[in-house]
Amino acid sequence: MYEYTRAVFYYETDKMGVVHHSNYVRWLEEARTAFFNDSGIPYAQMEADGVVIPVTNIDLKFKRFSSYGDSFTVRVEMTRYTGVRFEMAYTVANQNGDKLLEAVTGHAFVGDDHRPVALSRVLPGRHEVMQTLVRGPF
Amino acid sequence: MYEYTRAVFYYETDKMGVVHHSNYVRWLEEARTAFFNDSGIPYAQMEADGVVIPVTNIDLKFKRFSSYGDSFTVRVEMTRYTGVRFEMAYTVANQNGDKLLEAVTGHAFVGDDHRPVALSRVLPGRHEVMQTLVRGPF
Amino acid sequence: MYEYTRAVFYYETDKMGVVHHSNYVRWLEEARTAFFNDSGIPYAQMEADGVVIPVTNIDLKFKRFSSYGDSFTVRVEMTRYTGVRFEMAYTVANQNGDKLLEAVTGHAFVGDDHRPVALSRVLPGRHEVMQTLVRGPF
Amino acid sequence: MYEYTRAVFYYETDKMGVVHHSNYVRWLEEARTAFFNDSGIPYAQMEADGVVIPVTNIDLKFKRFSSYGDSFTVRVEMTRYTGVRFEMAYTVANQNGDKLLEAVTGHAFVGDDHRPVALSRVLPGRHEVMQTLVRGPF
Repeated sequence: MYEYTRAVFYYETDKMGVVHHSNYVRWLEEARTAFFNDSGIPYAQMEADGVVIPVTNIDLKFKRFSSYGDSFTVRVEMTRYTGVRFEMAYTVANQNGDKLLEAVTGHAFVGDDHRPVALSRVLPGRHEVMQTLVRGPF
Repeated sequence: MYEYTRAVFYYETDKMGVVHHSNYVRWLEEARTAFFNDSGIPYAQMEADGVVIPVTNIDLKFKRFSSYGDSFTVRVEMTRYTGVRFEMAYTVANQNGDKLLEAVTGHAFVGDDHRPVALSRVLPGRHEVMQTLVRGPF
Repeated sequence: MYEYTRAVFYYETDKMGVVHHSNYVRWLEEARTAFFNDSGIPYAQMEADGVVIPVTNIDLKFKRFSSYGDSFTVRVEMTRYTGVRFEMAYTVANQNGDKLLEAVTGHAFVGDDHRPVALSRVLPGRHEVMQTLVRGPF
Repeated sequence: MYEYTRAVFYYETDKMGVVHHSNYVRWLEEARTAFFNDSGIPYAQMEADGVVIPVTNIDLKFKRFSSYGDSFTVRVEMTRYTGVRFEMAYTVANQNGDKLLEAVTGHAFVGDDHRPVALSRVLPGRHEVMQTLVRGPF
């Protein structure tokens, strides 16, 4: 599994004294983009090549709070890739290994006009790399 | 259905040119707190009374992009309430009525120590109001 | 003075129990874009016409905390406009009229390539409107 | 000077294609809390001891845009400490050393009731450490 770790930022907390739930969605994106950057498919390069990767669905199950002073690790893998869609699965844990969140996100590919494209057709080299990432390679 | 409407803020967009997906989670919270504030259960008062309402799960299905210049309306209702948990269902649409998002969020009640409490026991008056909110009253 | 009012959102608070200071910068943008939208210079239209308006400087003096349950009003006016730069001055107060913040922001105009442009040259019609906004018209 | 470095996150960008200006305020906080954590005055411990550190003023001068794909380094030092207030000065640069921002923030100490306190009186040990941090020690 690919792992992404950092400290919680103060501004990510809310008046409940814990990290606001919306920030976990951002943590997933941080981990997902790091996963691609370290897989030879830099996210910034994809966009420069005219393909953007919107989120189509998100499923979050919260297990425990975290707060300022904690750090977190996202473990992420690609669970499915079809050439036009893919799915990522995540667990997020704190510095003690306590699970904070289980999550799944779904994604599609769109062009600069925001219409769906098949990666296999528009960027075949990236398509080949994507195929190697399912259930691997980390 | 309860309705909550406002304009998209510029800072809610990202370099894709559209609203960043994490902000929809925040829009749901805005609508949910407005729902409670207008139902005689002000969110701020709940916390002053020692009960906070964390999110336990979120399910999001994105349908369409929105961007700066758009406004959005969240239609929200309570779909389930058990005394210790409740569930809210949402649709978000833009100013033209195009659906942007379908969502469900689950919630629990916790005390100041972040441990679960039964609302029916700790704030029975609020519990009675909550029972009237399922599939209504808006 | 132009006035912009809304309620504080829960997710704008931090573990100190008050609105995180970074959000005031966002409130100023909300008020500033509303000011332009209501002045016949819609912000979204400016960008569609190829002119974006970055912030060049910000000066903030915090006076008082606000929190969830409060609302705020931003009073804003344009204090200077040169054809290539402008300056906005703000006061933010809560629902009781207590001052929360005094602020000044400076702005320039840039084209799609992010290089400075003179509004007076690239969009002379908007330039004329801008001239009428200094110390007015609200 | 103390240095704090990380990559820009995708969600920090806006539709202008660059990092939204409000996020720089958050970067300053990240760097400032890291500075204190590495100076033997952990921010989380200060709050646990009943002292919170609000921002009283911010001055930002933006020099250049940054965007997704960039990283940034904040160089920060304490420039003044009086026992009841302190001031931090920052420069932020990208991975090429291009300056993005110059900034100053001012801070006070408040108790759990959000009223000002003198650190020298309520936490004299921390006060002694604070005195060693002005124009140093990094």
